[in-house]
Amino acid sequence: MRQFVVVGHDAPTAPEFSLDDLPGAGRLDVLCRCVNAAFFLSHAIREDARCLLVLDDAFTLRFEGSELRRLNPDERSTGALVRNALDQREEAVGHVEAETSPGVYLSRRGFAATLADVAEGSAVVQLHEDGAPVVERDPPSDPAFVLSDHEDFTDREADLLADAADARVRLGPEALHADDAITVAHNYLDTGGFRRY
Amino acid sequence: MRQFVVVGHDAPTAPEFSLDDLPGAGRLDVLCRCVNAAFFLSHAIREDARCLLVLDDAFTLRFEGSELRRLNPDERSTGALVRNALDQREEAVGHVEAETSPGVYLSRRGFAATLADVAEGSAVVQLHEDGAPVVERDPPSDPAFVLSDHEDFTDREADLLADAADARVRLGPEALHADDAITVAHNYLDTGGFRRY
Repeated sequence: MRQFVVVGHDAPTAPEFSLDDLPGAGRLDVLCRCVNAAFFLSHAIREDARCLLVLDDAFTLRFEGSELRRLNPDERSTGALVRNALDQREEAVGHVEAETSPGVYLSRRGFAATLADVAEGSAVVQLHEDGAPVVERDPPSDPAFVLSDHEDFTDREADLLADAADARVRLGPEALHADDAITVAHNYLDTGGFRRY
Repeated sequence: MRQFVVVGHDAPTAPEFSLDDLPGAGRLDVLCRCVNAAFFLSHAIREDARCLLVLDDAFTLRFEGSELRRLNPDERSTGALVRNALDQREEAVGHVEAETSPGVYLSRRGFAATLADVAEGSAVVQLHEDGAPVVERDPPSDPAFVLSDHEDFTDREADLLADAADARVRLGPEALHADDAITVAHNYLDTGGFRRY
């Protein structure tokens, strides 16, 4: 299982936003691209992938590759899935998840709770410009990559992540958008860590 | 210079399409993602990159990284740049380009003419599932990657490409969307070909 946690610092927590302006909806466009990067192959969905969007430290939206049915590769339709989920936010009570569409689950969890859940069964990988080049590492078997949207992690988030992280790596010399980092991480894992491909 | 040629088989050649439905506009969403993948770093534009969209074998739209001014990372705004360019299509006469916004140039060129131009000064790289693993190749210094949208190359396009190609490689064991292939190709070049990173 490959997991990707993406922190949306300004992401909406209510469905009152326009699909015509996803950047204006707390840069929801970034999060939509991350979901799509996590799942799409050329003619298939990556069933062994999970993507968790943390929305403004209030909600977490879990996308489950093996169950997804209505995911399309364009940003707008993924934004519609998020809006649909938030439209049902009253059904998410406490940490109990509500399935808002096939393979999409909403819960009232912030970053700390989501990270703690993920860290239980996975190797948490922190992407960091000062990390070790990813090619020098063996790919972990159940990695959970934790990424931030267009903003940096807050100090508190960075501390939580540093405590939880099993590895700190960088994917290359250039700082990438979160969705591109997901694409590169997938390729790294697909190829068994580049060197062994 | 890194170049990416993307063939949009059903792409619009007139501005009468809705930004609310880019997938319905001949899968323009795919082409917009390719443009964005070609240029965006976390907080910068890749100035040494060029992206050429071939629209229904009738027009070619050239995006020039060193000159781009109005590119945003969401699909819709890039779709608006394409629509704006097509709105000025009468200004593109023959193979002479018209600059439709800063760093965006429209010309009446199909795939064959665009490929011939690119092949003159670059190493044309064909991405193919039967190609050599990219990690076994030295990165060429001026690569031009040629990709197709959601459809395969036609037989004629494949023949032209095979004739022009200096290398035939695959990026990994999985078939990727064109925009993800661009992201992985950039990472391959950023890291000097993985092995030397």
